[in-house]
Amino acid sequence: MKILMVGTGGVGEAAAVIAKQRDPNGDWLKLMVLSDFNLERAQAVSERLADARFPAEKVNARNKDEVKALIEKYQADLLFNACDPSFNETLFDVAYECGVRYSDMALSLSIPHPTDPYHKTNVKMGDYQFAKHEDWEKRGLLALVGIGMDPGAVNVFARFAQKHYFDEIHTIDILDCNGGDHGYPFATNFNPEINLREVSANGSYWENGHWVETKPMEIKSRYNFPKIGEKDMYLLHHEEIESLARNISGVRRIRFFMTFGQSYLTHMQCLENVGMLSTSPVSFNGQEIVPIQFLKELLPDPASLGPRTVGKTNIGCIFTGIKDGKEKTIYIYNVCDHQECYKEVGSQAISYTTGVPAMIGAMMVVTGQWKTPGVFNVEEFDPDPYMEALNQWGLPWVVCEAPETVTVWR
Amino acid sequence: MKILMVGTGGVGEAAAVIAKQRDPNGDWLKLMVLSDFNLERAQAVSERLADARFPAEKVNARNKDEVKALIEKYQADLLFNACDPSFNETLFDVAYECGVRYSDMALSLSIPHPTDPYHKTNVKMGDYQFAKHEDWEKRGLLALVGIGMDPGAVNVFARFAQKHYFDEIHTIDILDCNGGDHGYPFATNFNPEINLREVSANGSYWENGHWVETKPMEIKSRYNFPKIGEKDMYLLHHEEIESLARNISGVRRIRFFMTFGQSYLTHMQCLENVGMLSTSPVSFNGQEIVPIQFLKELLPDPASLGPRTVGKTNIGCIFTGIKDGKEKTIYIYNVCDHQECYKEVGSQAISYTTGVPAMIGAMMVVTGQWKTPGVFNVEEFDPDPYMEALNQWGLPWVVCEAPETVTVWR
Repeated sequence: MKILMVGTGGVGEAAAVIAKQRDPNGDWLKLMVLSDFNLERAQAVSERLADARFPAEKVNARNKDEVKALIEKYQADLLFNACDPSFNETLFDVAYECGVRYSDMALSLSIPHPTDPYHKTNVKMGDYQFAKHEDWEKRGLLALVGIGMDPGAVNVFARFAQKHYFDEIHTIDILDCNGGDHGYPFATNFNPEINLREVSANGSYWENGHWVETKPMEIKSRYNFPKIGEKDMYLLHHEEIESLARNISGVRRIRFFMTFGQSYLTHMQCLENVGMLSTSPVSFNGQEIVPIQFLKELLPDPASLGPRTVGKTNIGCIFTGIKDGKEKTIYIYNVCDHQECYKEVGSQAISYTTGVPAMIGAMMVVTGQWKTPGVFNVEEFDPDPYMEALNQWGLPWVVCEAPETVTVWR
Repeated sequence: MKILMVGTGGVGEAAAVIAKQRDPNGDWLKLMVLSDFNLERAQAVSERLADARFPAEKVNARNKDEVKALIEKYQADLLFNACDPSFNETLFDVAYECGVRYSDMALSLSIPHPTDPYHKTNVKMGDYQFAKHEDWEKRGLLALVGIGMDPGAVNVFARFAQKHYFDEIHTIDILDCNGGDHGYPFATNFNPEINLREVSANGSYWENGHWVETKPMEIKSRYNFPKIGEKDMYLLHHEEIESLARNISGVRRIRFFMTFGQSYLTHMQCLENVGMLSTSPVSFNGQEIVPIQFLKELLPDPASLGPRTVGKTNIGCIFTGIKDGKEKTIYIYNVCDHQECYKEVGSQAISYTTGVPAMIGAMMVVTGQWKTPGVFNVEEFDPDPYMEALNQWGLPWVVCEAPETVTVWR
């Protein structure tokens, strides 16, 4: 089986390192082409892997012909999209046109709302892909979208809970806690414009068949995360809510919470107050300068956070519902340690927890364990082999019965 | 009597407006030349005054010949320095060379420490001028330095307290409270680089004959200011401590406190954390950009704060000591309203409380009420006519017996 990976950043590197470790003899992975707009970057990862199955190539992921040429050159069976989600539609279409399978790992809030990116949330951003479900089905091809951690692994947690623990799931709270500390007073894990959208965009959750929109950061809570401790968290919109609402029958409410420290929020607020988060150019010394882009220049390079970030992430879901006529609550989560991830794949847990589940999803496809043709979310397939692979591949999960539930206040 | 004012900013304008109001018939003020590097600015003030005694001139205050030419053209008797203190030494020397009297209103922290401006305080910045005392004395000329509010009026308060209320003054706490609100989450009253020095420089106070240096903002207190209410304040170095220590015999401790709101301090801290207060250039889009200068571009223009600033300032001194063998404490202060100042002189209380006392000091000189030749601080002359003028000229003062005293904590 041959994979063309497009985009070899921290997430792509984590996926490639794990793929090599877990299939040293090429039982299912014959080839994984590491392609990137920055050839040096792809070559560096290829050299670190020191395995002929991982050649490096340069590619402009917005140029369909260049991507097609690589698919043909290597006779790839799967286009593994590890780019920023703004590339998803192009790469999704290229895979279809070339007749190969496809996967991506869209991150919520990475795709801004088309008309009001800093205040409105981009609900139903997956529509473009799902509208083409029948074309893919007819052609006998599988496209798996949103297969990172959240969306991705947490969606599988939901299907797993439904299959083994509940007759009916009534509520799902997705909890994304980054308990990491990089030691800087303020730094962002990725592009500050995305961080800004996280805190300035309206939140939303799904209840009784419709969306409920909230003001930015309006709904706050505090939760005592296993292996981490108490953290403040806030309700945000996150795209996995959209597919879980479609795919988990009988669910009444789905919410997403992400932790933010008070210092992070205070810095964001002060920077917004003075105009440093503005995306409109300001004229300075006869040059047009976009404040948030200048800020990005001042902040530590996100890639430099890996070696210095300590602590853990805890990402999972709390489910409530009915089993055998009785109410029950369970919490399925994974805890990941930033330093251990860095030692293993050269990047912190943020990349690791996205790249590893995506690699497992890709393996489900290339090994044929998931094969129904069409455009699907991961929760539409049998969760068992995937959950087993998470335990083997470095993201062991825990099922906690009767956990503390989430209390919100405004 | 003829005055050459050099520098016609907000402070100079306030001084000129008050001078015209208080001497409409030219009893003592025959002429006040308004000179500025920006001729349009000087002309605008001249037109607003609509009085032939206030002509506008262009001058480069760093060019001795240009200043001399104006002194000769108008046969000025006094050089009234209303520039940034960085011009003081040049203008002080020009006045001496031309044989005219001189005044300035140096603001502490406006002159950075020569080697470490953002951490060290510039103790004894007046030495250059006082070293020339005997030259001025021999020539029969008076130079009056630091004649704004603080330094300036507060120094006169000290001499007034010594003359009328105490046999011995033991301690002086100078309290500078700006209770104004401009309605912005964050803005600075003047150049943010000076604001930065205020909060990042070490503090110092004078005790038992020597200086005690503190860490930046190390000593905090909270005081219930008459007409304003409770405000947090911090111990800073301020130059009037230097002259009061010389001129108020028997004083054991002198401290200076300035109020800062928590929001102001939080914004300064966050901006410093991300590097926005840095004075070292950063390369961005192939251009060298100094972060704090770009920040200055984003912040509201200090001149725009005048019309929208509401609230009051309270600036004064708390004295403790002995009278007739009994311990006593008094508080002499002035309360000034931002909006009333703006209506009267077109700028807020920060300019008003600097320009008006300076104008009164100049009047003491030109009317001959203060005439001993040499280089002096205002507390070295009889305070009574000056204190009387403050009441007449719009800065009425209050003597409060047995006020709350200052309690500090670290």
